[in-house]
Amino acid sequence: MATERVRKNFWGWGWEERFPDEATRRSIGQLAAAFIGGADLRMQEPPALDEVELAPPRVAPPAALADRFSARPYDRACHCYGRNYRDVWRGFHRDFRAAPDWVVTPRDEADIAAVLDWAADARVAVIPYGGGTSVVGGIEAAVGDGYAAAVSLDVGRLDRVLEVDAASRAARIQAGASGPVLERQLAERGMTLRFFPQSFELSTLGGWIATRAGGHFATQHTHIDDLVESVRMITPRGTWHSRRLPASGAGPNPDRLALGSEGTLGVITEAWVRVRPRPRWRSKATVTFERFADAAAAARAITQAELFPANCRVLDGREAALNRIPTGGRALLLLAFESADHPVDDAMARALELGRSAGGRCEDGPVSAAGGDRVDASAGAAWRRAFVDMPYLINVLVSVGLIGDTFETACTWDRFDALCDGVIKELRDALHRVCGGGVVTCRITHVYPDGAAPYFTFVAPGRAGAEADQWWDLRAAAAEAVLRHGGTITHHHAVGRLHRPWYDRERPEPFGLALRAAKRAVDPAGVLNPGVLVDPQAE
Amino acid sequence: MATERVRKNFWGWGWEERFPDEATRRSIGQLAAAFIGGADLRMQEPPALDEVELAPPRVAPPAALADRFSARPYDRACHCYGRNYRDVWRGFHRDFRAAPDWVVTPRDEADIAAVLDWAADARVAVIPYGGGTSVVGGIEAAVGDGYAAAVSLDVGRLDRVLEVDAASRAARIQAGASGPVLERQLAERGMTLRFFPQSFELSTLGGWIATRAGGHFATQHTHIDDLVESVRMITPRGTWHSRRLPASGAGPNPDRLALGSEGTLGVITEAWVRVRPRPRWRSKATVTFERFADAAAAARAITQAELFPANCRVLDGREAALNRIPTGGRALLLLAFESADHPVDDAMARALELGRSAGGRCEDGPVSAAGGDRVDASAGAAWRRAFVDMPYLINVLVSVGLIGDTFETACTWDRFDALCDGVIKELRDALHRVCGGGVVTCRITHVYPDGAAPYFTFVAPGRAGAEADQWWDLRAAAAEAVLRHGGTITHHHAVGRLHRPWYDRERPEPFGLALRAAKRAVDPAGVLNPGVLVDPQAE
Repeated sequence: MATERVRKNFWGWGWEERFPDEATRRSIGQLAAAFIGGADLRMQEPPALDEVELAPPRVAPPAALADRFSARPYDRACHCYGRNYRDVWRGFHRDFRAAPDWVVTPRDEADIAAVLDWAADARVAVIPYGGGTSVVGGIEAAVGDGYAAAVSLDVGRLDRVLEVDAASRAARIQAGASGPVLERQLAERGMTLRFFPQSFELSTLGGWIATRAGGHFATQHTHIDDLVESVRMITPRGTWHSRRLPASGAGPNPDRLALGSEGTLGVITEAWVRVRPRPRWRSKATVTFERFADAAAAARAITQAELFPANCRVLDGREAALNRIPTGGRALLLLAFESADHPVDDAMARALELGRSAGGRCEDGPVSAAGGDRVDASAGAAWRRAFVDMPYLINVLVSVGLIGDTFETACTWDRFDALCDGVIKELRDALHRVCGGGVVTCRITHVYPDGAAPYFTFVAPGRAGAEADQWWDLRAAAAEAVLRHGGTITHHHAVGRLHRPWYDRERPEPFGLALRAAKRAVDPAGVLNPGVLVDPQAE
Repeated sequence: MATERVRKNFWGWGWEERFPDEATRRSIGQLAAAFIGGADLRMQEPPALDEVELAPPRVAPPAALADRFSARPYDRACHCYGRNYRDVWRGFHRDFRAAPDWVVTPRDEADIAAVLDWAADARVAVIPYGGGTSVVGGIEAAVGDGYAAAVSLDVGRLDRVLEVDAASRAARIQAGASGPVLERQLAERGMTLRFFPQSFELSTLGGWIATRAGGHFATQHTHIDDLVESVRMITPRGTWHSRRLPASGAGPNPDRLALGSEGTLGVITEAWVRVRPRPRWRSKATVTFERFADAAAAARAITQAELFPANCRVLDGREAALNRIPTGGRALLLLAFESADHPVDDAMARALELGRSAGGRCEDGPVSAAGGDRVDASAGAAWRRAFVDMPYLINVLVSVGLIGDTFETACTWDRFDALCDGVIKELRDALHRVCGGGVVTCRITHVYPDGAAPYFTFVAPGRAGAEADQWWDLRAAAAEAVLRHGGTITHHHAVGRLHRPWYDRERPEPFGLALRAAKRAVDPAGVLNPGVLVDPQAE
């Protein structure tokens, strides 16, 4: 399996071997500096494992489970943080003070239940861990002083596709299976989940469910929520196991409380999810627009026409440039339709008609293919490669002293233009104030009949040693702008510890009371991922 | 408004004026008796209002709200029960012992908050009431001895479409608006919700949300859940008001806890819902099959092909006959595609191809229309008329001493044939044992890629005075069969008090703990619809 061939980078995004040599880092840094109109690079060396200083574990593991517990420096460092800019910055700068005391890797559900029992008795915080790609502080052991210790509970050994029900097009998959691992097993049965978040290489089904991740489809089934048929989750009060059902009206949907629970209610161990055959018909095209707002209007018209493209992403001119797609500053609409059953050319033709009505110019395509052929409209393919590689850029930016990050939201169409303009303006002001400059780009990742999810990227020069603080100032300014303009604090990156202040303001107050009470009911000792979503101790 | 022109039947389904005269009742009864192979009719007269005996209210209303409270016999009788067979049977037989002490009709949210405050202090149970069409005992004042009194809180005065956001295709609608009332107001703005449950004439947006009702669309957006953008709900601990968002990943979705809460967490006052223009292109067809299982397989193939017909309903031969559609015993598949944007003929052609592959014979259509013309494939139209009129049949069956009812479930495709066969067989056995005979029919109301929702109807001879007990024995046998064969206790009729025993077995145990804790957090006095979903007092 992938995790055995290559090793995760213990301080940064992705696989260790993907961190480039100094010359490559310098040239990437120079490109980034040029993109933001110039910045000095400070070439710095990444940490070696023997530079990692860790306090000894504060508690002993339970004797019966000792062989599942590891305090090896690599394991503890790897499980110390998620992978947002500040996480990578802290790891790069050898700060692993927040590392969990132990990393526990259960072999089965009984192990998980035993760990939870032990943790409740010993007052040890338990941080469920899937792929480790949280960008919101969702998996770090920052649990306060109320706990004797903290363990990171890594479900990575639970990585099998256990069952495929071909009639229902559903599969029972363990929570620790990463994107490539589960897709490989599904492919053997002629199926695919087709859920491709940017973290696909590393992130896991359990993590997707716990964080309500957003995937491949730009319309319709945008979140993992829509693909979940039932969930199995180990809580301190027993197994939360919903019945496999295509739909039900029996009370509030139990799965919808597990979805987005971010490890605060239990440890997800497996789920039945909806799978499908690989698409056999495809059509792709790119359309450019003078203005981003016009491209957004085209995406709106297409989704309100219920044409359901698999891809319907909009990049502003700067975002296209960042993805090395030359558009001369024009906004870009990437369209793709796919089907396992029938040709999709008519749908594409109608979508392009709507695109042209909104002022678009078809630059590439439609290119269609039938019978399983692979097709790649060139700009679309370039964008997709850049999509999966983009998070690796954070490692390099940190290593050359630049700041960079992304965040996303969603809002209804009536507020969309004002939100995008407002967030960009307020973030630019913050960049100027905090960093003396920098660039903001915008794309749309998911589109709905009633709104869309804009996704922002920023890059800026950092001040030596202050980059993490500067980053926080920028993110806080952005979050304020998002909330003020009617957006949600997150469309698919979850809440974690990073978004808590804004999440608390966004959610209905009585829902907050209900959620905290629900958590207490299933986790009376408050050991599961404390500080995420709710404060178990607070009244 | 409709509710002003005609009056609700205080003991039975629907409008008072729709209860037929004796000759018509006799001829309907004779048809039903013939359908079940013969049964004696006992012609009985419905109750007059002055036959209704009610105990005086046990508490005085709060002085400041006295003019919102009514203890008029008509109001109390009307709000005594929902409208399942046993409800109608009890009303017909002049049993209104369970009537609420008062019916309160708030003018605004402040009234509702004041009623909840008063109720918590006075220990009065509050039963939220929308259209009064619950078929699961969801709105009756059967609250046990722990309360000083019970009031039915009727949100009927809150019936306005407050706002339409044309850009986002969304509307803010008050909870008390019934189907026709909200559709009329939306039509003035060129929009429609297109949510047509069988109770459409009377049921309300708030009731649909509280019960996760199922509507018009047989595929995709089957439940009101999918149309809700945000919910506003008054709880004893303040206003539960979610942000208007097309989607979010910020923690568990608050709306999904309000959806299906059945009045136990708060009183829903309004919601933003997704609306759309009226369809301009339509195509309809009917296909018949030798076997019901083949028709189901066709529906499965069509939905797994992601063709998304608006209608994709399957009737077995007896169900078709009950709906007066002669098929010679063959199973019937009703197909309809619709779009406000583009022709749907290709989708219909592909669906019919899949239908023929499954052994189907196209009997009628495809008939298509463009530009807003109305089209009606004849069998489809007959079925739709019967659909809305069907619940009125209960009134007549009760009046002639017959038993009849419906129930629904959903399961994954791998279990579908066995579930349908098993439920029909076990219910037939129960009919034979309890009633000495009777008929069961089956249709599919909603179809998913991973499963479907079968809907069962039964008619049987009753024993004078014992009909309600016989009905309960039949429903209990059916519920056992549904659960044993892997179904849910309800696909779109909610839980109420009727389904509680099976709901408690279906839901994950820790979720039950979480839900009860959530209820206590927002309704500490436990006054909201006690006994539905959870027992507030239990530990």
